[in-house]
Amino acid sequence: MDKQHHITPEQYELLVTHAQIGRTINGLAHDVNNYLGVIMAYAELIDAESNLNPDCQRMIREMTDAVELSSRMLDTLTTISLKNSERIAQCDVPELIDGVAALFSYELNLNRIDVTKNIDLKHITLRINEPKLQRIFMYLVVAAIEIAKESKCSSLLLSAYEQDQYVTLSVGLPGIDLGFQVSQGLFDSFYTFPDSNRMIVGLESACELAASLGGELTVDKQHGLQVVLDTSNLPGELSQD
Amino acid sequence: MDKQHHITPEQYELLVTHAQIGRTINGLAHDVNNYLGVIMAYAELIDAESNLNPDCQRMIREMTDAVELSSRMLDTLTTISLKNSERIAQCDVPELIDGVAALFSYELNLNRIDVTKNIDLKHITLRINEPKLQRIFMYLVVAAIEIAKESKCSSLLLSAYEQDQYVTLSVGLPGIDLGFQVSQGLFDSFYTFPDSNRMIVGLESACELAASLGGELTVDKQHGLQVVLDTSNLPGELSQD
Repeated sequence: MDKQHHITPEQYELLVTHAQIGRTINGLAHDVNNYLGVIMAYAELIDAESNLNPDCQRMIREMTDAVELSSRMLDTLTTISLKNSERIAQCDVPELIDGVAALFSYELNLNRIDVTKNIDLKHITLRINEPKLQRIFMYLVVAAIEIAKESKCSSLLLSAYEQDQYVTLSVGLPGIDLGFQVSQGLFDSFYTFPDSNRMIVGLESACELAASLGGELTVDKQHGLQVVLDTSNLPGELSQD
Repeated sequence: MDKQHHITPEQYELLVTHAQIGRTINGLAHDVNNYLGVIMAYAELIDAESNLNPDCQRMIREMTDAVELSSRMLDTLTTISLKNSERIAQCDVPELIDGVAALFSYELNLNRIDVTKNIDLKHITLRINEPKLQRIFMYLVVAAIEIAKESKCSSLLLSAYEQDQYVTLSVGLPGIDLGFQVSQGLFDSFYTFPDSNRMIVGLESACELAASLGGELTVDKQHGLQVVLDTSNLPGELSQD
């Protein structure tokens, strides 16, 4: 690790703890998905084989919805954790944004940060390495949440828009000028806010990941943290959904 | 970060990815536990309100078992991730060992590593900071799994035993002499195996955590990686269950 990595022992311990927990996610997701599969199958069987009243039928539907929502969160984390996958797939951008945002809904609620979305794309799918793009977007969301907490900003704006051959996914912090943070090294490996112990990791990795997709991480006054993808650089063109 | 932290860009990216995923675990566990609560409540209501045949009653039981097993895995991860908690509680050692081992059951199966347990404790509860002890034990299990994969060892022995005022939790790799790894810096922050890119993180943190509990991380020829706790140093004495 090079000179950029300044980190206190407490921050290091937290990073390592999180890394160890993150390392277990594939196994956890696999096991919990198996249990969810059991629940789903039996809920459907009970519904089919028993003469349930309308109230109980509604409960069965809510159970299967709960299984699906849980399963989706676990799947997003599993996809993100795919190591060095070079698989190129059709990636539905609004779905990707929703999936990543769902991972943080609890933390956002807890910190009273509202999320609004603004998706303005003619083509909503990209032919791209989806785990990488999810990971980049996750890093941007994490960074934005930390900045929002630090600066008492109470909303995030997740947006996606197209201009010429560029598709941009951004995480905006309305009213916050990120110029200061950028000048202080926001894109280094470990950015620590000057007034607190709060730390942002991963933006350096996000830059590298973006570059590997032929894109770039930028900061825009209006849109906040963003990843700009040059679709003429992607392995396939934009495709109509 | 000091000179001990040698790490390749790929390893660094993996560490950061895992850390970002681990960071989401509390929110994920909270949300998924809410969904599991819905499933549990409705399963019980349907069972109570409908005249289910014995087959469907068995399915309800299997559903609630699946909910409980999922919930337990998520709870273990949530407890482990508790940051700087100084809460001292009665900790059931065999349960702690089972909980941590369950997190890795998928990875262990995938790598065909058998787990056996050998718990020989007169007193099975300790008055201790449970998240810290879980975290230490998790680090030991992760390290042992990496060593097992590297050295094609197909079994782990999780044990706990008492001698005088010492309680020891250990993760053994039968037939593997860890002397070489230790001499090569196994307890440094990032240990990389000489013949592969496989990396072990966290043992340095585990040493510090053990010290903060008045204990010590050691390597024993017979028992493998172990944490030795001096119960006369713990905030309360051992208590009969």
